[in-house]
Amino acid sequence: MAETFQHVAIVGAGLVGSGWAVAFALAGAHVRVFDERPEVRREAPARLRQMLSDLEAAGLAERTAETFSRFTVCHTIAEAVDGVDYVQESVFERIETKTAVAHEIGSQIAPHVIVGSSSSGIPASAFTAEAPKRERFLIAHPVNPPHLVPVVELVPAPWTAPGVVQTVRSALEAAGKVPVEVRRELDGFILNRLQGALLNEAWALYEEGYASLADIDATISHGLGYRWAFMGPFETIDLNAPGGVADYAERLAPLYHGVARSRSQPRPWSPELIAKVTAERRAALPLEQLPARSQWRDKRLMALVAHLRGQAS
Amino acid sequence: MAETFQHVAIVGAGLVGSGWAVAFALAGAHVRVFDERPEVRREAPARLRQMLSDLEAAGLAERTAETFSRFTVCHTIAEAVDGVDYVQESVFERIETKTAVAHEIGSQIAPHVIVGSSSSGIPASAFTAEAPKRERFLIAHPVNPPHLVPVVELVPAPWTAPGVVQTVRSALEAAGKVPVEVRRELDGFILNRLQGALLNEAWALYEEGYASLADIDATISHGLGYRWAFMGPFETIDLNAPGGVADYAERLAPLYHGVARSRSQPRPWSPELIAKVTAERRAALPLEQLPARSQWRDKRLMALVAHLRGQAS
Repeated sequence: MAETFQHVAIVGAGLVGSGWAVAFALAGAHVRVFDERPEVRREAPARLRQMLSDLEAAGLAERTAETFSRFTVCHTIAEAVDGVDYVQESVFERIETKTAVAHEIGSQIAPHVIVGSSSSGIPASAFTAEAPKRERFLIAHPVNPPHLVPVVELVPAPWTAPGVVQTVRSALEAAGKVPVEVRRELDGFILNRLQGALLNEAWALYEEGYASLADIDATISHGLGYRWAFMGPFETIDLNAPGGVADYAERLAPLYHGVARSRSQPRPWSPELIAKVTAERRAALPLEQLPARSQWRDKRLMALVAHLRGQAS
Repeated sequence: MAETFQHVAIVGAGLVGSGWAVAFALAGAHVRVFDERPEVRREAPARLRQMLSDLEAAGLAERTAETFSRFTVCHTIAEAVDGVDYVQESVFERIETKTAVAHEIGSQIAPHVIVGSSSSGIPASAFTAEAPKRERFLIAHPVNPPHLVPVVELVPAPWTAPGVVQTVRSALEAAGKVPVEVRRELDGFILNRLQGALLNEAWALYEEGYASLADIDATISHGLGYRWAFMGPFETIDLNAPGGVADYAERLAPLYHGVARSRSQPRPWSPELIAKVTAERRAALPLEQLPARSQWRDKRLMALVAHLRGQAS
């Protein structure tokens, strides 16, 4: 079994970076945390401690005081990357920002260090072309929140050195994550393309008046989402016809081709449509209740993770 | 609170029909079960008993001997629909078959009876146009297996009588199901259109070599599927940006529009692609292990349902 990274730097310690910090610390790593915003650095210890104690309360972590002792808050990128094996960058998702940060990280790291970016859709080639040691960079895109959802998309740039993806894959697997490999760059990678395809259909069905927002949501949250919580879409359809996926495709491929044909004129989500969706969501959940609902989501996720860990795969 | 249907007929007692029978019996209904295949009728009691005892073992049902006593196997449609409030039709999904069965059911039911069809994609207007009492018919499409997954799509035909959808919605809600309303007919309704949109993208990503089948599956089963097990796609994105869905759309709508544009030339799943997907699935799971894996799926679903029932919404 591969060893996980023993010394890790977190660059950008918002929601995503904090989740990564917790995930690595739980896997036994020493984690050096940097954010360019002084208030984020100041609040980092309290936030990380709270995340750990929430995990402990949910039965997902033990001895978190010891885990907490592995965090070090740093005041510069140079200080953060000193002595680490791996850097996880999670700064704001804008090409200019990521380009500047990649340049700084590349200038400061030792030659063996690998740098993963949490970018959710911008490929690494868009912001590492001019970075020093650009062959050490790749995308390592998590799902929110990264300490609770295991999947991580690994996407190399054309210049990422051979072996980098495999090293990160092994280390993340050893740390309890579920890395998936995207073999070459594409916008949105795999995860957000799958989500986007479903969202585009959901927005179109709502725009055309076929169903309410709440009913479209329930179709997933009390329907399709049950199996997808522990099986992928291919395994789901493979088990959904007596003769497996070939049998299923014979029955349903024409229907799904019809769905694709009916959406061959893509429409952007119009400002009017976004306003209508927003109004319906804000009626269901006022904006000021969003943080509390996000906490509910994380509690539900923690309970679900505890449940899933107890099941045979 | 609305009363659920007290007397129900099941027409077509395969996997889907049996699931419906169990769901209604658990809700307290007397359930009359018909299938035109003598061997299916013969095996129905043992199958229904087994499903109930599996539920009891999973902590999802109690006193199932009493529940079992509410089943009656019938030998004709006329006998099955005698004295019932509601008929759930789950025969083979072919227009000719459904047309003939709708005609027979329509001829035999009392005027107040409602008939729901489990059709997963064929709208009711395609097979009830000539049926007697066609205004009593609608689609009530469940997810497999119907006694474990709560969602049911309700889709009226243009001639479905006013109030029919609402009556079925209330009765199914009272029976613990989660009905969603599709306001007018469209191919695939909502559930299979959402599934189809995601599947089409998954098949295309695999065809183009971006990732392995197993990694695409893991992207859902260890990533997107976690939140979708208890939140719909709209709520998910609403909680995924500090300013809610409007904020999220501002950041990500351009990416998703790009995904849609890149798929504006829909390709059917080619025979070669289906063969390749089949080969990869059969290497992961030989065909003869499919029934055992389906039992594993149902065990996992039962455990998940037990978990979800204990959570606050």
